[in-house]
Amino acid sequence: MTEVVAHRRGRPPAAEQVDNRAVILRAALEEFAEHGYDGTSLRGIARHAQVDPALVHHYFGDKSELFSTVLGADGTVDPAFLAILDGPRETLVGDYLRFVLSLYEDPAQREQMTALLRAAIGTNEMAHLARAFVSSEVNARFAAIAAGPDPALRADLVSTQLLGLFVARFVFAVEPLASASVDDLVALIAPTIERYLFGE
Amino acid sequence: MTEVVAHRRGRPPAAEQVDNRAVILRAALEEFAEHGYDGTSLRGIARHAQVDPALVHHYFGDKSELFSTVLGADGTVDPAFLAILDGPRETLVGDYLRFVLSLYEDPAQREQMTALLRAAIGTNEMAHLARAFVSSEVNARFAAIAAGPDPALRADLVSTQLLGLFVARFVFAVEPLASASVDDLVALIAPTIERYLFGE
Repeated sequence: MTEVVAHRRGRPPAAEQVDNRAVILRAALEEFAEHGYDGTSLRGIARHAQVDPALVHHYFGDKSELFSTVLGADGTVDPAFLAILDGPRETLVGDYLRFVLSLYEDPAQREQMTALLRAAIGTNEMAHLARAFVSSEVNARFAAIAAGPDPALRADLVSTQLLGLFVARFVFAVEPLASASVDDLVALIAPTIERYLFGE
Repeated sequence: MTEVVAHRRGRPPAAEQVDNRAVILRAALEEFAEHGYDGTSLRGIARHAQVDPALVHHYFGDKSELFSTVLGADGTVDPAFLAILDGPRETLVGDYLRFVLSLYEDPAQREQMTALLRAAIGTNEMAHLARAFVSSEVNARFAAIAAGPDPALRADLVSTQLLGLFVARFVFAVEPLASASVDDLVALIAPTIERYLFGE
């Protein structure tokens, strides 16, 4: 491993930069998922990614900035999410719910989502980052498509239902909710989000 | 303080027991709220309550058992909650939402709820306790009053909406949700919970 670290030391050539960023982000996601926010260090992430710690800092700043970037890279701002929000209103909410719930059917994705939720909710430092992320990346987009008065409050209400669904299904794994099918959950929860976004 | 500790050492007379339990529970709630689960020790709680650590252990067992008891003492199983669930179906959901949201208007209660949510969601060890508590103390009661098929799933859905509401309003303090009035939130969210409990 020392050879790899030595090989990657110093400023990387331009062609390698995109690759290095992706490798570091992936390593960071796995470290945060496994050790939680407090148990993760930039040094450990660098070791995992087989790069120099200075490179991690160069690309992503300090640990809280890196975590903030990881939150943004977790699928919620997936281009597919944006495409769904641009879709027809009749199917938008169902499509979105099906998209996020299906994404986390994958055990590895589910584990990472659980770890990220825990870190985001469990620590004071992370709560304000998570709030900023939810506000700017998720709620702002829902507010933009909401109909009627108080679009920002409508978007917040959507996020309450989604947050609670994710915590109950992935973190607490409450039964029978945790084992309910994606189809059933879409049918049961879509009307709630429809009403928050478009109701009178 | 040493005198007080010395005074309270040993098995307490029966008349003092109820008082000691309450003092320890209060101290535990404040310690968990201030330091989180990992940062709290039985010794620190005993110091805060001015009792012998052995007394804390005698009444409440180890830290996770004590935390579990504290979760049960946070107002969710308040007799008023049970009385509301025994009330007429037409006003039950609105009354319950108004009850819990009003309870946490109080800044001290809100701070404690935030700390408890953080501890319950943020750590692996606490997640299973929180799940057990939510399952047995909250969901079981909602399932008992739900109408139609799948009462357990209905109750789980209620808990997703409540959990997400609490996390978004108290932990993330997302605006404008965090500053929305109790009246507005009851009007907006009660129909969701009505539908989960009693919908077709």
